Order: sequence, then structure tokens, then C-alpha cells
Amino acid sequence: MNEALSKKIYIEFPCPTEDDNRSDKARVLDGLEEQGISARIPLHTLRELHRLSEDGDWKWTISLSWNGDFWEVVRVEEGNHENEHYGVALDLGSTTVVARLLHMGTGECLAETSAYNHQIAFGTDILTRIFYCKDRPDHLGELRDATLDSIREVMDQLEELSETSREDWISMVISGNTTMIHFLLEMDPFCVFHTPYAVGVTAPGFLSGRELGLSIQGNVFCVPGKSNYLGGDIISGMIATGIPQSEEIQVFFDIGTNGELVIGNKEFLLCGAGAAGPALEGGVVTTGMRASEGAVEGVRIRGGKIFCDVIGGGSARGICGSGIIDLIAELYLNEWVDFKGTFNPEKSSRIHEQNGRCGVEYAPGLMFWQEDMEEFLRTKSAAVTMVEYLLRESGIPKSEIAKFHVAGAFGKHVSVESAVTIGMYPDLERERLCNAGNSSLEGAAEILLHKETLDELDKIIDNMVYIQFGAVEDFVHMMAAAQAIPHTDLEQYPSVQKKRLEYRNFQEEKF
Amino acid sequence: MNEALSKKIYIEFPCPTEDDNRSDKARVLDGLEEQGISARIPLHTLRELHRLSEDGDWKWTISLSWNGDFWEVVRVEEGNHENEHYGVALDLGSTTVVARLLHMGTGECLAETSAYNHQIAFGTDILTRIFYCKDRPDHLGELRDATLDSIREVMDQLEELSETSREDWISMVISGNTTMIHFLLEMDPFCVFHTPYAVGVTAPGFLSGRELGLSIQGNVFCVPGKSNYLGGDIISGMIATGIPQSEEIQVFFDIGTNGELVIGNKEFLLCGAGAAGPALEGGVVTTGMRASEGAVEGVRIRGGKIFCDVIGGGSARGICGSGIIDLIAELYLNEWVDFKGTFNPEKSSRIHEQNGRCGVEYAPGLMFWQEDMEEFLRTKSAAVTMVEYLLRESGIPKSEIAKFHVAGAFGKHVSVESAVTIGMYPDLERERLCNAGNSSLEGAAEILLHKETLDELDKIIDNMVYIQFGAVEDFVHMMAAAQAIPHTDLEQYPSVQKKRLEYRNFQEEKF
Repeated sequence: MNEALSKKIYIEFPCPTEDDNRSDKARVLDGLEEQGISARIPLHTLRELHRLSEDGDWKWTISLSWNGDFWEVVRVEEGNHENEHYGVALDLGSTTVVARLLHMGTGECLAETSAYNHQIAFGTDILTRIFYCKDRPDHLGELRDATLDSIREVMDQLEELSETSREDWISMVISGNTTMIHFLLEMDPFCVFHTPYAVGVTAPGFLSGRELGLSIQGNVFCVPGKSNYLGGDIISGMIATGIPQSEEIQVFFDIGTNGELVIGNKEFLLCGAGAAGPALEGGVVTTGMRASEGAVEGVRIRGGKIFCDVIGGGSARGICGSGIIDLIAELYLNEWVDFKGTFNPEKSSRIHEQNGRCGVEYAPGLMFWQEDMEEFLRTKSAAVTMVEYLLRESGIPKSEIAKFHVAGAFGKHVSVESAVTIGMYPDLERERLCNAGNSSLEGAAEILLHKETLDELDKIIDNMVYIQFGAVEDFVHMMAAAQAIPHTDLEQYPSVQKKRLEYRNFQEEKF
Repeated sequence: MNEALSKKIYIEFPCPTEDDNRSDKARVLDGLEEQGISARIPLHTLRELHRLSEDGDWKWTISLSWNGDFWEVVRVEEGNHENEHYGVALDLGSTTVVARLLHMGTGECLAETSAYNHQIAFGTDILTRIFYCKDRPDHLGELRDATLDSIREVMDQLEELSETSREDWISMVISGNTTMIHFLLEMDPFCVFHTPYAVGVTAPGFLSGRELGLSIQGNVFCVPGKSNYLGGDIISGMIATGIPQSEEIQVFFDIGTNGELVIGNKEFLLCGAGAAGPALEGGVVTTGMRASEGAVEGVRIRGGKIFCDVIGGGSARGICGSGIIDLIAELYLNEWVDFKGTFNPEKSSRIHEQNGRCGVEYAPGLMFWQEDMEEFLRTKSAAVTMVEYLLRESGIPKSEIAKFHVAGAFGKHVSVESAVTIGMYPDLERERLCNAGNSSLEGAAEILLHKETLDELDKIIDNMVYIQFGAVEDFVHMMAAAQAIPHTDLEQYPSVQKKRLEYRNFQEEKF
């Protein structure tokens, strides 16, 4: 039988008589035992049920929340309310917090919403936030409060959207990286980025909503992580993609400021993580910006002209990750840059030279410089080399990858074709290249609805073998090769070769 | 190996390295596992140990508190502090709270102290307090606060007396009757005295000190009771006397406002409880008072003169329970009253008649009236009949009682000889009549020091068979017989018969 992390059960208990005057506590526990449920009753619920017992008819709905060891009776209601039974799955991202309210009986999603992580006030990048807290317990408290405020904000939204009562929200699952979980628990996350990388906690397990300061009746489960860089969000991704049960080999790649990677199937799981660099999110590029209003998010070059898709439809203010990848792909296919990313000013009047440096004016007044290109290609190369290295370690040719999942915002917004063209994604049949969506949230929801997943989590973490990229001697050589567009080993990118030829023929026909 | 309800263990954990960068949580749990201890770490301790881990050398003393299911890590200290390890045993009486601080390693008692239960402000007798709370959650809160204040008062005293730090107090055991436990947990105890006598809780088990509002690092165990009238104090008495392990048959009798009784050995345990009435504590008697300054606590009649022992040594203001029992015994032995308790004014000029009623002036201006005598004998009879009835039910002659334990203040202060003379205690060899002392406190201490006692508690409660006295048809007849001094069946009191003859001969010789 499928069991979720919470239950609501309507029981008609026998009313007390002089012949059967068990205590309220014993009566409830016995009634649950008859349903095959071994439970505990915390003090606050014991008080509640004793109040109800005084005049009640003992026809009660019992809410139970799993705490990792046993079921806790967290609420008692008069009458049958089995159907008013909800739970919250939450992705605690460093930028965005996304939450979903689920009906725990049907699994139906009643509402989904998101909010910026209030931690941003203390720094857009994680390291700034971490240094803000170093040796400052008061600052750590501020970050914890910011985290809780963000979660409370989405919970308020969920309540409004779903028109449910928060008293019926029994359990919650939070998925986030190791740093986010440390902030949530008010534990200094300096350890996450500092040798020897022994963090405070990777598996906090179940915590009571009260203890955490969240208005959940029962317990909050934090999805366990593997290590400092491979947090609960990645393990959630494993649950969401089903890779650890798969016969075929699959790749899971979460690319952002950091890149986290898992390659494997039901027999093995290799994983690694490394700094991919903020370039992928538009961070380091001169005119780079986050994917918000005014950002160029898509680029095409047709007939020597550059066409941009701008978020919000107004004039361009800068370029975000997906825009950059499109831009580089189009520059390459149109041969405005060569395989090293070097601009060829003869190819277009849009390629300018200023103070001895080249660049393309991709939108009026906005330049993408040679250094931007190089920075970005280094970052791309770091990300791609993680995949190549892990594949080589496991002796698996790219052709055997049944699915290549890209998680997070990157997977959602980037053009698959452009990502293959620049060599960011492997050149596989396109249906094998999957957008994993918010797999952190999906995994959290899966765990919330399926208690048996908890055992799976432990197995996944045990089976994962972490590969330290920094320790790899020839990593640097591999990176150099991956810095080319799409790669020095063009054989690996047949579709890109073909497409480039098509572009060339098209251009030649035209002129 | 003897295990207590708490542990303090010094462990030198391996320091984190890049090759062994387990999380702080995993490192501590693994270290404990190596010592054979399966534990959990609550959030507040996790934070504490993470703070220590930042610069520490990982040579830590771990404090563990048993919570009924597993060991909880409740404190982490730098260095070896295994020896600074204490626990509190507490008897939560309706009049007095008595507590003892124990060294958990040696079992040594470092301090013992008591205080009046602050609940007294809401009524000296329990029923007044219960009615004060009926349907008034705010009043119930006041009683809870009064209970906690009483406990805090003795804890403050213990800290001062023992010169220990409260941070080293890891676990606590509280023993009290069912009403006291309900007040402690802020649960309405009306159920204790009201049909169908299904109380809120008889076995609250382990509660965290924080949750209860007591400054104990770990958990507080409330000794479980059998039913409404047979609370944890009586079950503690079983642990203290060892009756449930005994080959021989023993009787445990706790006499106060209510009488609670257990008869049995390792094979059976019959128990019962009934209202003994406040008369035994001096409550109903006209000049009765509690055993405090000015109370007559001992009486002898020699040569026609009454000699009184007065608490504090000043002039008498009234008479308490032990004084009354002495007085009645002496009146009977000197034949100032007959076996029915009827005064014979011819026997002494101290026997006065006023407004058609007789009484004895036991101290200047203080009278003990015929009605007082009758009230007291009714009460005595109720108490004695419980014993007789249970013995008859089990088919056991009095002579087979190896030990007759009398618990509480009654057992401590009353003269055994006088109690036998008036028929309150059975006429057994005097060494079989034992003062059980504060067996509620003794049992609590025993449980605190011996974790294996927890299993015993469950067995004791399961084995106990509760006999409802009210339901017994011929109980009334038995009571009538027990109302005499010492009893209508004089054969049962050979030593009393003998003593009365001695007194008569002595008197006759004298005059």
C-alpha cells in the first residue's frame, strides 16, 4: 500500500464506560493499533484530545505525521475530516523558493507558487551571504530569519491560492542545497566551502514544524544530501528522474553558479560537483544580467542581421544565460567567430573593435566582447569536462547515454539546439536531451507522497561515489579541449558539423 | 550492565580531514555507535555541536537522555566531564514536593529537600483544586504554574545545597498521583474523580524538560499509574518495596486523604483504593490540625493524667493524625472509652459533658468529642476494611503477610503500637510492620538510576488487578466490624488483648 508522510484517519472509538475506562491516551493508541498504526502522542496533542474527550462522542479524525521513527499524533478533530489532508513540498533555492500544496489523498497539486529568497538582501551570491555570517551568530540569525520569511511568504500564498486551512497541512518536505539547509537550521555554513568540507549536517531528517518555526502541524523533512556540494536538491533530482532505478545509463546535470552532476543507473552512481561560474547565468559577462525584464533571452542571426528576443518586449538592457548561448551558437554557425571563439571583423559590420579588443554589438549599444566569450567558454568547458570526465571514469561512451537531464532554470530556458551547437550538451538525438524542470521540487513532492522513498534515499546516498574533480591531473587538458566550439574533437558533434555546413551553403546560395 | 536514564560519555572523535569529511552529525552518531549507543540528535544540540566543531579538537563529553525509544544527545561539552553527571528524583505530593539530587554515576544522594506544593493556595484538599479548574482553562493554567513553581523551588534549593550546575542535570523522574500529573501536564483532572473514571493519561512517559518548562537538559519521565486512584506514586512504591519480585506476600498501604493498597508478591498483585477521609490527617476532628507547630503529635495517659507531645514544644493548639491515634489507643487501653469508642465519664475528670455530648479534654481547653471519635473510627474502618477485603479476595490469612508497608507521612509519624491497638494496622510481629518512608521518592530514584526498571513498570501495571470496593456488597458489614477498637473480632488482635489486661492490672495494682 502506498503510504505518504502523513495520514488522516477517521476512527469511531468506543466511548469510555466504568468497565472500559482506559485513559484517553491508551484509547487513542489502541484504536490506532487496531488500524495497524504504532504511534506516539506528544504533549500538546494529548492536551487537545483530553479537552475533546470531556464532552465528545469519540468520533474523531486523527492526523499523523511520520517522524522518521514512528507516527506522531499531531492533531485530533471531531467528526470525519479525512479528506482535508494536505502537505507542502518546497524547493529552497538560493535565488527562488518554490512551493507546492498537495492533496495527500489524491496527490493532486492544489497550488504552486514561488518567491525570491529573502537571503538575497544579504548578497546575490551564496559566498557573500556565507562571509556575512562568519563568526557572527547574530548575522546567522538574520539569514535564518530571511530563510524562514521566504518560506512563510510562499506558504501564505499557497493558503490563499488553495483556500485550504493551514491546520490541515500535516507534513512538509524541503529540498535545498547544503548551504540553504544550514541557513534554515541556523547553522554556520562556512564549512560547506572550506577545507576539509566536513559540514554540520547532510541529513537533518525530520524536525518538528514548531521547532523550526513553520506553521505545519507535524514534521518537516529535509531531503538529505551526499556532501557539501551535493545537497538534498540533487538527491531530490535522483528521485524525480528515477535514475537510480533505471536500467539504462542516464546523466543528471544541474548547472548554475555551481554544476552538480550524476551519471549512472540502478547499478552505479558516479557524482561530482564543481564551480561552473556565474558566467552561465550571465553573471560575469560585461552586459550580462539575470533573466528579468530587458534581458535578451534569445538570439538569431539571419541574412547578416541579429534578431533578439527581449524579456518583457521592450528595449534590451543586457543579456542572460540563454541569450548568451544562443548568441554564441549563432556567431559560430554564421562563422562570425571561429571554433576558438575569435571574432572575425570581416564577417559583419556589427563586429566592432574598440581599444584593441573585438566584440559584437548584439543589440543597440550592447557589446559582447572577446573577453566575455573567453570567460564564457572557460565556464562552459568546466561544466562539460565534468560530464566527460565522469563518463571516462565509468568507461561509458556518450552514445550510451539514454537520457541527459538538465535541471533547474538552465534546463528550462536554454535552447537545446544552441546548447548542443556550442558543445554545452552532448550531441545526442534530441529526444534524449531532457529538461528535468524543477527536479528539486518534484523530488520533494514525490517523497512527501511516498514514505517508502525514504529508504531509497539512504540507498542512493550510500551508492553514490563522489569524484573530486580538483584532484584529477588531466582535468586541465580535458578542459582545454572542451573550450572550443563545440569541441576540438568535432567527431563528437556530427549534427553541429552538419548544421554548420548547411548554414555555409545557405549563405553561399544567398550571396 | 546497569544503565541509568542518562549517560555522559567522553569520546575523542577523529578530527575531520578531506578523506574523512563526514558531517558533524554523522561523526557524533558514528562515534556513539562504536560505543554501542544508537542515538538521535535534536536540532538544538546539533547547533551546539556545530558551533563547537568549528575550532574544537573533537574531544567531547556527550550527554545522553533516554526518551523511551532511543538515546537523545542533549548536550556536548569540550573536554572530559563524565563525572559531572546528575539527575533529579521528585515526589510530587499534593501537600509537599520532595526532591533528591543524585550523582548518576555513583547513585549517591547529594541533596534532598522539600517545599509545600504551591497548589495549596487553591485549596488544601485536592477536590477544591479540581473544582476550581472545572471548565476554566485559565484556572487550570494557574494550577499548572503553581505545580511548576513548586518543582522549580525545590530544584533551586537542590542547586544551592549540592553546588552543582544545573546544566549537568540530564534526566528527571517525577512520581505523583494521577491528579498531580494532570495538573503538571495542564490537563483537566476532573475525570479522576468522576464516572467513568477514564482519565486523560496514566502513562505520560518521557517528556522533554523544555516542553514541560523545567530546566533539565534532557527528558522528564513521569512514573506511570494504574488508574485514576492508583497513580505513579503507588507504582513507585512497588519499585521501592520490591513487592512485585517478592516470594512472600506483602502489603503496601498508603494512607492519607485517600487510601491506596496493594497486596501481592511476584505471582499476583491485587490493588484497590478508596476515600479514607481527611480524618486520618486530623482534618475533620473539631480541634484537628495538620502536623505543624502547636499540634499534639503524641499522647500518653499515665496515672489518670494525660501527657501530650506538642510539635515545637509550646502549648497545644490542636491535634494531628499521629496524636489522635495515640489518644484513642490510650483512651481505650485505660478504658476511658469502650470498644465502641464511647466515653465513660466515670473514668476520669478529664471527660466532660457539654450540651449533652461527651468528650475528653486532652490538653488545656482542647476537646476530643464523641463525634470526633465516631468520625475517626469510621475512617479507620474504611481503611482497614480495604485490607481485610483484599486479603479475603485473595484467600490469604493475615498471618501470611510477611511485610506490611505503610507509606507516606502516616507510616513515618504514627506510633506502630498505637496503630495496632486501635486496629488500624494488623496485629503482626512488630518487625513485619514497616515504615515504607517516602516510597514515591525512593521509587523515582530507583527508576532514574536503573533504566531496566522501565520494563518492570509495564509488567507491574499489567499484572495488577484492580478491585472496586464500592461494588462489593458485604463491604458495609465488614466496615461495621472494623469500626470497633481494635475490631469486633478480638481474636485477630491478641497483643492488644494482652496489653489491655496489663493496663488493667497495672491500674488495679496502683489503686
